[in-house]
Amino acid sequence: MFRFLPLLSLLAGAHALENGLARTPQMGWNTWNHFGCGISEELILSTARVIVQKGLKDLGYEYVLIDDCWQAPERDPKTKAPVADPKKFPHGIKHVADEIHKMGLKLGIYSDAGSRTCAGFFGSLDYEEIDAKQYAAWKVDYLKYDNCYNEGRSGTPQISQQRYAAMSKALNATGRPILYSMCNWGEDQPWNWANTIANSWRISGDIHDSFKRFDERCPCTQVLDCKFAGYHCAVTRIIDFAAPLGQKGGPGHFNDLDMLEVGNGGMTYDEYVTHFSMWAILKSPLILGNDLTAMSDETFSIITNEAIISVNKDVMGSAANRIWKQEVAGGDLQLWVGWLTNWDTVVALMNTGEETIKTSVAIADVFTDGSDWSRKAAYNLYDLWELEDNDGRRYGKYQGVVRGHIQNVH
Amino acid sequence: MFRFLPLLSLLAGAHALENGLARTPQMGWNTWNHFGCGISEELILSTARVIVQKGLKDLGYEYVLIDDCWQAPERDPKTKAPVADPKKFPHGIKHVADEIHKMGLKLGIYSDAGSRTCAGFFGSLDYEEIDAKQYAAWKVDYLKYDNCYNEGRSGTPQISQQRYAAMSKALNATGRPILYSMCNWGEDQPWNWANTIANSWRISGDIHDSFKRFDERCPCTQVLDCKFAGYHCAVTRIIDFAAPLGQKGGPGHFNDLDMLEVGNGGMTYDEYVTHFSMWAILKSPLILGNDLTAMSDETFSIITNEAIISVNKDVMGSAANRIWKQEVAGGDLQLWVGWLTNWDTVVALMNTGEETIKTSVAIADVFTDGSDWSRKAAYNLYDLWELEDNDGRRYGKYQGVVRGHIQNVH
Amino acid sequence: MFRFLPLLSLLAGAHALENGLARTPQMGWNTWNHFGCGISEELILSTARVIVQKGLKDLGYEYVLIDDCWQAPERDPKTKAPVADPKKFPHGIKHVADEIHKMGLKLGIYSDAGSRTCAGFFGSLDYEEIDAKQYAAWKVDYLKYDNCYNEGRSGTPQISQQRYAAMSKALNATGRPILYSMCNWGEDQPWNWANTIANSWRISGDIHDSFKRFDERCPCTQVLDCKFAGYHCAVTRIIDFAAPLGQKGGPGHFNDLDMLEVGNGGMTYDEYVTHFSMWAILKSPLILGNDLTAMSDETFSIITNEAIISVNKDVMGSAANRIWKQEVAGGDLQLWVGWLTNWDTVVALMNTGEETIKTSVAIADVFTDGSDWSRKAAYNLYDLWELEDNDGRRYGKYQGVVRGHIQNVH
Amino acid sequence: MFRFLPLLSLLAGAHALENGLARTPQMGWNTWNHFGCGISEELILSTARVIVQKGLKDLGYEYVLIDDCWQAPERDPKTKAPVADPKKFPHGIKHVADEIHKMGLKLGIYSDAGSRTCAGFFGSLDYEEIDAKQYAAWKVDYLKYDNCYNEGRSGTPQISQQRYAAMSKALNATGRPILYSMCNWGEDQPWNWANTIANSWRISGDIHDSFKRFDERCPCTQVLDCKFAGYHCAVTRIIDFAAPLGQKGGPGHFNDLDMLEVGNGGMTYDEYVTHFSMWAILKSPLILGNDLTAMSDETFSIITNEAIISVNKDVMGSAANRIWKQEVAGGDLQLWVGWLTNWDTVVALMNTGEETIKTSVAIADVFTDGSDWSRKAAYNLYDLWELEDNDGRRYGKYQGVVRGHIQNVH
Repeated sequence: MFRFLPLLSLLAGAHALENGLARTPQMGWNTWNHFGCGISEELILSTARVIVQKGLKDLGYEYVLIDDCWQAPERDPKTKAPVADPKKFPHGIKHVADEIHKMGLKLGIYSDAGSRTCAGFFGSLDYEEIDAKQYAAWKVDYLKYDNCYNEGRSGTPQISQQRYAAMSKALNATGRPILYSMCNWGEDQPWNWANTIANSWRISGDIHDSFKRFDERCPCTQVLDCKFAGYHCAVTRIIDFAAPLGQKGGPGHFNDLDMLEVGNGGMTYDEYVTHFSMWAILKSPLILGNDLTAMSDETFSIITNEAIISVNKDVMGSAANRIWKQEVAGGDLQLWVGWLTNWDTVVALMNTGEETIKTSVAIADVFTDGSDWSRKAAYNLYDLWELEDNDGRRYGKYQGVVRGHIQNVH
Repeated sequence: MFRFLPLLSLLAGAHALENGLARTPQMGWNTWNHFGCGISEELILSTARVIVQKGLKDLGYEYVLIDDCWQAPERDPKTKAPVADPKKFPHGIKHVADEIHKMGLKLGIYSDAGSRTCAGFFGSLDYEEIDAKQYAAWKVDYLKYDNCYNEGRSGTPQISQQRYAAMSKALNATGRPILYSMCNWGEDQPWNWANTIANSWRISGDIHDSFKRFDERCPCTQVLDCKFAGYHCAVTRIIDFAAPLGQKGGPGHFNDLDMLEVGNGGMTYDEYVTHFSMWAILKSPLILGNDLTAMSDETFSIITNEAIISVNKDVMGSAANRIWKQEVAGGDLQLWVGWLTNWDTVVALMNTGEETIKTSVAIADVFTDGSDWSRKAAYNLYDLWELEDNDGRRYGKYQGVVRGHIQNVH
Repeated sequence: MFRFLPLLSLLAGAHALENGLARTPQMGWNTWNHFGCGISEELILSTARVIVQKGLKDLGYEYVLIDDCWQAPERDPKTKAPVADPKKFPHGIKHVADEIHKMGLKLGIYSDAGSRTCAGFFGSLDYEEIDAKQYAAWKVDYLKYDNCYNEGRSGTPQISQQRYAAMSKALNATGRPILYSMCNWGEDQPWNWANTIANSWRISGDIHDSFKRFDERCPCTQVLDCKFAGYHCAVTRIIDFAAPLGQKGGPGHFNDLDMLEVGNGGMTYDEYVTHFSMWAILKSPLILGNDLTAMSDETFSIITNEAIISVNKDVMGSAANRIWKQEVAGGDLQLWVGWLTNWDTVVALMNTGEETIKTSVAIADVFTDGSDWSRKAAYNLYDLWELEDNDGRRYGKYQGVVRGHIQNVH
Repeated sequence: MFRFLPLLSLLAGAHALENGLARTPQMGWNTWNHFGCGISEELILSTARVIVQKGLKDLGYEYVLIDDCWQAPERDPKTKAPVADPKKFPHGIKHVADEIHKMGLKLGIYSDAGSRTCAGFFGSLDYEEIDAKQYAAWKVDYLKYDNCYNEGRSGTPQISQQRYAAMSKALNATGRPILYSMCNWGEDQPWNWANTIANSWRISGDIHDSFKRFDERCPCTQVLDCKFAGYHCAVTRIIDFAAPLGQKGGPGHFNDLDMLEVGNGGMTYDEYVTHFSMWAILKSPLILGNDLTAMSDETFSIITNEAIISVNKDVMGSAANRIWKQEVAGGDLQLWVGWLTNWDTVVALMNTGEETIKTSVAIADVFTDGSDWSRKAAYNLYDLWELEDNDGRRYGKYQGVVRGHIQNVH
């Protein structure tokens, strides 16, 4: 107990990019996962209206994010300032921002720390100041900053840091609070240096709408020195990557497990529940990636689970840690434990195997860092997907059932 | 289906070195694999004549490439310009280029981003501008640029990029379109940074005329952080290396799996068919490496398969991905799938084992990225080596026979 | 025998940071492991008094170390000099140093080679000279220098060395002998370059009060190119890390296995004995981390074992090497051998398994580097935890019993 | 056959440091392995006399090498020039060189690319020009240049190359041909960049007089990205390291497997025969490391095997390659093949296991790179340790017996 306190102090005191944003992981919606380059003012604004109408805004989904392909073919030939595609955005980005702000939401935009964006539009490398000023002039509130065509400026933390710090400095210099979402795919260990320059940083290649299909397009099996981020990364692969990194996040600076795929059709209900729950307890930004204008009730029920969202929004900002991982038929069973404020604890059992498992968890495993007192105390146990106190106080160990491809989050 | 489109956009929009060359992977012939340093004007021109006469030019084999050993012992003592060996090239390189151009072909030359070429002749490191100008003056159309004696200028993407970008800049400055073929053997992950400076980049040490003989002279078993490229790399080893990298190629910028060994005698017919097919669907340059003046009918039949070549020349420039790899007796069975224009798909089953295998492939595996629709549709299936519609529409899965050391490409 | 001598010369002659300190590994007490940020002048001085009163000072525990959280929220706004928290240290650091010196002890302080300390206070990066001068003015005798928020200045030995050498130079420039304890968690192989700039260097992430509980918060399983030090590292993990590194330590420059957890409650008596013994024979600094004002007799008996401490204080400063490691039920059995002065040898058998093992050790394994003579000689064998000559001379092999989670040190 | 020729050209034409030295691997004797710091003028000269008297000079052992510990405690306080220890070398180094030259031998000396030598004497880092001039003034013919205390100037090939190139340039500037023997223990892949600046480069940590005892003091099990060279490396470990590297050596620039241990007592006769043979066919420098003044007949017979030495001195300078490695009881059986001039081939079968093995080798394995012709030809087979034609022409495969811990070299 006693030794637990300093650690809390440590986490609470951690300093991040000093723009005051992302005290808990950012929430919102982004165009890419579902619409890719097929974007427009109409799509952005109609989705924003749904966010308000369906109550998503009230749950915290406040950022409406335009991803790649919003740009005109070239920068302004004289000023070199970025220009939006006049067909997709006939009234310009500022107009979209104004409309978004009227709804009480915030607008995000996308660029790339390279000579080109991933889709081939102009990048911001060596244009950081011009671009940051333009974003601020447009009243943009958020920048996702990608890593394609980086001209080889990588290979050590120092080289990558300098490239991403240039935009951080430029954004701060505008005077407008702009949430800075780094997307360098985990290259050169950003968890070690992005905390003072960004509000969040991606830890992997792009997510794929699959629970556990292995693919060499996302070739690394370990995160710590991955030399090729790739894309097409399954949900369980990204969770494996996140396991050691939780200690590096905190208020104002979070690991980003990539945007959500809930509702895009590649996973089962149980798998989407697991995907959403794990993102939440790992304190990843919760950025929806589906078509909100044509969403099933099932999808809606997942992304609006207030109990899960409240764990993500816990003010400590402390990510759950994986306590153990055991092989089971066709996968593994994992125990995750996270600290919340007021001595609450979130516990997740994740089963990536093919079969339903009946298991129990030692209370000592849940409180590995606590005192004797914590290991012997009694607790109320709530199932965050059942929203009821399933039989209350337990002693010594938890017994329960974990279905295949699902987790129970308590 | 819907989500497939943005990805297509992404690939189509990718930007590369802006010299307009290599919109599909370059095709041609190179002296090294068969003749090494035993080259001459006579060899080059007589081979070029065969390329025209036998119809190889019409199939796309347009580049005639002089590899190492064309140089005089030293540069011009006054101008420091490169000089050709007067015995091997009595009329100089320009004369050869003129003759090649008269035949409607293009000429390539070789140098090295180091103090010496691999064979010990003068290298171009720190002579980039002088050399590029001379190549352009000689009317050269293509440069293969090697990596020997690089004086330790490697170790991070940034260091290697700067060394290779110097020649890219010098070539562009000449005003002559010169295809730039980087050969740094995959050091420092060129797939991440060569796309904006070169038309292709090698991914491994030199190929060896062997299908799967392991050799410590090519010691790495993984490509992502290989610290010693070596040479003597077997075909299946290079294919393993290529597996995650396909996503990095596209029109104007391709992964180079090294020059072909078809016809040089170290593999069986089936193995050469596999070698040629895989190079084609992985969108590698197809650079012949045999003696074209003394070629067997069998060799000719392989390198002139129009169906296979047309896959290589597909305008999307999208390399096939490996979907799965299963152990079989003495090797493995691999499924590769590539996207082509007009929703065509190329499928390859490669068997590196010793025995013929009867197997079936789930259609769902072929269309892992597609919609429900694509997975349920009916398809015409063509065998690109049989050139007939082998029994047409199939549903749900493909059944067939894969002989040892062979692949079926559909 | 003959060949043994040069090696001794080598070790004895090794040069380190030339401040004359740490001729044997430093000993003392540090606030962090038990008190974290909960520190104050009162805590420091009352603990110092206990160190004197209980005889710990006489055993060599001379450094009283204030870890993180001693700082005021900000530096002096004018001079930029570091300022102590006026609530925790109402009379300032110099007063504490004076009181400590009166007791015949020495005072240490903490800072960080980054923009912030791990707990979020001001760091010393780019303030090295100002801070070193202030520490010297305060009469500080020791600096622990951490690695949080290092702004990406890492990734090669050169980059990390420059960051840590800046403080080394600044400390030397003060003219006051200040023991320099580097804490960069083993990043970029400090054992290769810290010897000329520091008196000790950490080799891992922070210790956890556990003997062998694996935790992904300390994710590396090898030390040589660990890309993520983490924290929560169990004792046996740190010992594994230390195995190859002993050759890099010597008088004036030692590997630091992190502060001791003896007495903090997470291990059994046998485990703490092993922890303390291994730290001693591996020539780690012995920095107590428990609450000395409320210590059990058992804890006291461990940390005051003079025989073990004398091995740590042997003037050769030569760490024990692991000769072999064998799997046993639930762990492994390890043989460690260290050279002492006067041809004495320390031998440790460590059993991390669950069961008591009866085993024997070949004398030839103990003297792998010695001559025929050494392998055939007779020896007196002392158990450093029994402090008696347990049956004296032995020939050819040692037979004994090693309980689970314990070691015998001879 | 045809394709074999260009490769020969490649190797023959390779360019190295242009001082004209080490056209074949250097041979000689060095003080370290047997005498360590216990050296003196008397030891050097008396050993040199033995080299002449016993005919070792006539066999090619021409360099007499003083290793570490020849230095005075400090440089000349005014000129900063290096100074020899006046007790060990009362007449100075120049006198020793003169005496050595009178015997028709050459003298080598030692320094370190760091602030200190490994034994703690002054190093040459940032003193390259002063030191090279002094060595030349002393008429020194050879420099071994070590890697201790390198102040973190490592981590990429570029950083290490610059440190070692500084001395190369300084030596060349003296105008005296001084063989430059780099000893950076294989850090940062010197085989890729040392060829143009040095005559040889070490590939591992220091050798230990043991055939195959594993030791964590030499912790790496692979050579390509070893982050900790260590010392105490067994002979078979170093041979494993050398396996992929042979392609990087050639006339004027060789891989150095470290000095020989033959005659120092830690291995059996068969093991020393293997050690000496493998060093020879891998084209390592052959630097004796035993006490030549007290050498057994057995030791003498090994180091004077003219047939083995002649393979090492073959003018092609081409190291043998490992063709295969098969597990056997307690070790492995390895086939090595090397190309010599005049189409001769050296074949070695190395057995690191515990038992004698009766085996056969396919001729096709010996000539994996040759033509059909070479695989079908008849050969004379000589056993280089029996020096007789053991039954002459063989077809198709070789059958023979390989004892444990021994190799047969043909």
